[in-house]
Amino acid sequence: MQNLPLVVLRPLLIILALVLSAQAAAPDPLPAWSAGPVKQSIVSFVTAAVNRGSPGYIAPDDRIAVFDNDGTLWSEQPIYFQLAFALDRVKELAPQHPEWKTTQPFKAVLDGNVADLQEAGEKGLAKLIMATHTGMTTDEFAVAANNWLASARHPACACPYADRVYTPMLELLSYLRANGFKTYIVSGGTVEFMRAFAEPVYGVPPEQVIGSTFATQFRIGADGKPELVREPRIDFIDDGPGKPVAINKFIGRRPAFAFGNSDGDQQMLEWTAAGSGPRFAGLVHHTDAAREYAYDRTSKIGRLDKALDEANAKGWTVVDMSRDWRTVFPEAGVKQANKGDQP
Amino acid sequence: MQNLPLVVLRPLLIILALVLSAQAAAPDPLPAWSAGPVKQSIVSFVTAAVNRGSPGYIAPDDRIAVFDNDGTLWSEQPIYFQLAFALDRVKELAPQHPEWKTTQPFKAVLDGNVADLQEAGEKGLAKLIMATHTGMTTDEFAVAANNWLASARHPACACPYADRVYTPMLELLSYLRANGFKTYIVSGGTVEFMRAFAEPVYGVPPEQVIGSTFATQFRIGADGKPELVREPRIDFIDDGPGKPVAINKFIGRRPAFAFGNSDGDQQMLEWTAAGSGPRFAGLVHHTDAAREYAYDRTSKIGRLDKALDEANAKGWTVVDMSRDWRTVFPEAGVKQANKGDQP
Repeated sequence: MQNLPLVVLRPLLIILALVLSAQAAAPDPLPAWSAGPVKQSIVSFVTAAVNRGSPGYIAPDDRIAVFDNDGTLWSEQPIYFQLAFALDRVKELAPQHPEWKTTQPFKAVLDGNVADLQEAGEKGLAKLIMATHTGMTTDEFAVAANNWLASARHPACACPYADRVYTPMLELLSYLRANGFKTYIVSGGTVEFMRAFAEPVYGVPPEQVIGSTFATQFRIGADGKPELVREPRIDFIDDGPGKPVAINKFIGRRPAFAFGNSDGDQQMLEWTAAGSGPRFAGLVHHTDAAREYAYDRTSKIGRLDKALDEANAKGWTVVDMSRDWRTVFPEAGVKQANKGDQP
Repeated sequence: MQNLPLVVLRPLLIILALVLSAQAAAPDPLPAWSAGPVKQSIVSFVTAAVNRGSPGYIAPDDRIAVFDNDGTLWSEQPIYFQLAFALDRVKELAPQHPEWKTTQPFKAVLDGNVADLQEAGEKGLAKLIMATHTGMTTDEFAVAANNWLASARHPACACPYADRVYTPMLELLSYLRANGFKTYIVSGGTVEFMRAFAEPVYGVPPEQVIGSTFATQFRIGADGKPELVREPRIDFIDDGPGKPVAINKFIGRRPAFAFGNSDGDQQMLEWTAAGSGPRFAGLVHHTDAAREYAYDRTSKIGRLDKALDEANAKGWTVVDMSRDWRTVFPEAGVKQANKGDQP
C-alpha cells in the first residue's frame, strides 16, 4: 500500500469517510423506545425477518402485522374514545330527540350523571352506541366521525383525541412497513369510526382496518342514487375469539406479528404465535401513572389479566410502558409525519 | 440539415431507429381482446386514469378494481364450479355417511340422479354445500379445496377447472395492476374456496378475495393449539345488494372499476358507477355457444336480465364474448404466467 500514489489514495479515503459517516448517521428507527430487552426483541425479529440467510426470515407475502387499537396504538383512558364520541353525539342529537330528556341512559348523559350512567351498564352503553352510530348512511356517519375528531378535545391534554396516540407505536408501524410488513388494525372499535383517522394518523389505509361492524343495507336513496344505511343491529364483534375469526375472514393469512394490550387480544396473540416459523406476540402493559395511566388485572377498561399470565408463561414480549417508552405521546404536529409511509 | 456531417447524423439515425422499433414493439396489453369499442373503452379509461393531466385521472389510492368471479373471471357452466366441488366431496365423504345412501339430496348425488337433484332445489343445494364445506377446521378445508383443484377435471376440456379461466380477463387483471390498480374479487362463491386458487391463477392475494362466508369459531384444539372451525351456518351472502355492503366492509372505499356478468352484480356496478369522478362498469355477456356458452335472460345460472337493461340504459361497457374476445381460454400452461403480477 505504501507505494500507492496520493492521486489514487485520496478518492478511496473520501469513500471510506462517506461510508463511515453514513453508518454513524443511520438513524435509530425506534428512538422513542428505551434500550433494553423489549426494544431488542422487536429489532431482532424485524432484522431477521428481512435477512434471507436467517432462520427468522419471513417471505414478503407473509409479513402481516396486526395491531389492536384502543390501549395499543392510542389511549383508552379515562374512557374509550369511541364512547366519548357517542356521549358527545347524544348531546348533539338531543334536540332531535326530546324523549331522551326522560329516557335512560340518554337522560344520564344529558344530565352528566355518572352514577346513573354506570348503573345503565353494558346494555345502556350499547343503546348509546346504537342511537349515535346507526340509522344514517355510511357517508353521513363518516362526516359525523370526522367532525368529532376535528373538534373534540381529550380531557387530559385539551388536545384532539388523535394526539393521544403512542409515539413508540407510530414508530413501530413505520419501522415494520419500511421492512415490508403490511400493517393492519384489528380492534373492537367499529370499523368506520376507526377508518376516519387510521390513514392520516397511523398510515393504515381503510382496507387494512378490521373492526366491529353494524348490519348495513344497500338501497336506492331518495335522490335515485344508491346508498348504504347503517342499521341498529350488530353484525360482528371483533373482540376476544372474534379477532382470529376476523383475521381469517379479512386477511386470509396468519399474521407473523401481533400487538395488543388486553385480554381481548389474547386469542389474536395465541393465533399468531401458534403459526409455524418466526412469530412475534407483544403486549403493551400500562404501568405509567405519571405519563399516561397504570392499570391491568382489575381495570374495567382494557383489563389485562389472563393474557398477561399467558405472555409471561410463553415468553411473549411485554412492554412496561414506564420502563420501555422514552416518550409516550407525540409533541403537537409530530404525529402527522407518519402519514404517507404506506407504499 | 444538409450540412451535418455523417459522423453526427449516424448516431441520431440510430437513436431514431431505436425509438421507432421500441414503439413498434410496445406490446398490446390486451391481445386476446378484439379491436373495437369495448376494448377501446377499457384502454381509454386506464390510459386516462394514470395521466395526471387528464379529467379521467384517478389518484393511486383510489384505483380499486372489483371483479365478480363465476362467469366473469372463470366459467360457471355447465354448473358452478364450487357446486361441482360439493358434488365430488359428497362422493368422497359418503363412506363416512352411510345414511346418505337413503337421504336426499345426498342419495341423488350418489345415484347420479339429476332429476331428483333438481327436485331438491336451492334448499337441497344448501344442504350439500353445508355438509361438504363446514364441520371442519379452516386448515382441513383448505386441503380439501386444493386437492380437488389439483385432481378434478372439467367435463368440456378434461382439464383442471382452473384452466377454464378467461384469457382476456387475466390480461385485464394484469393490465390494471400494471397501471396501479388494486384488483379484488367480490363474488358469491365462498371466500376460502376462492382463496385456494385466486393467487396462483389470478394473482389476487387472499386479503383481496371477498366472498360469502360461513360462521367460524375459534377454539383450542385437541392438540392444545388454537384452530378455527367452520360451522354449518351462513355468516354472509356476498351477492346482489350484499356486494356493495361487502365492498364497504372489507375495502372501505368505493371502487373505480367493476366487472360482473349477471344480475347478482347489478348493485356492485350501480354502487361503483354512482361515485363521483371517472368510473368504469362492465359486464361479460355470454354470447359464444361455439367457444363457451350462450345464455342470459332466462338462464338459471348467471342470469343476466335486469343488469343488461341497466347497462344498456346507462352506457356501461358490455362485452359480447363472441365479438370482443379473440381467444376465450388459455392454452395449457399459459395462465400460470399471470402469477406474480401482484406487487
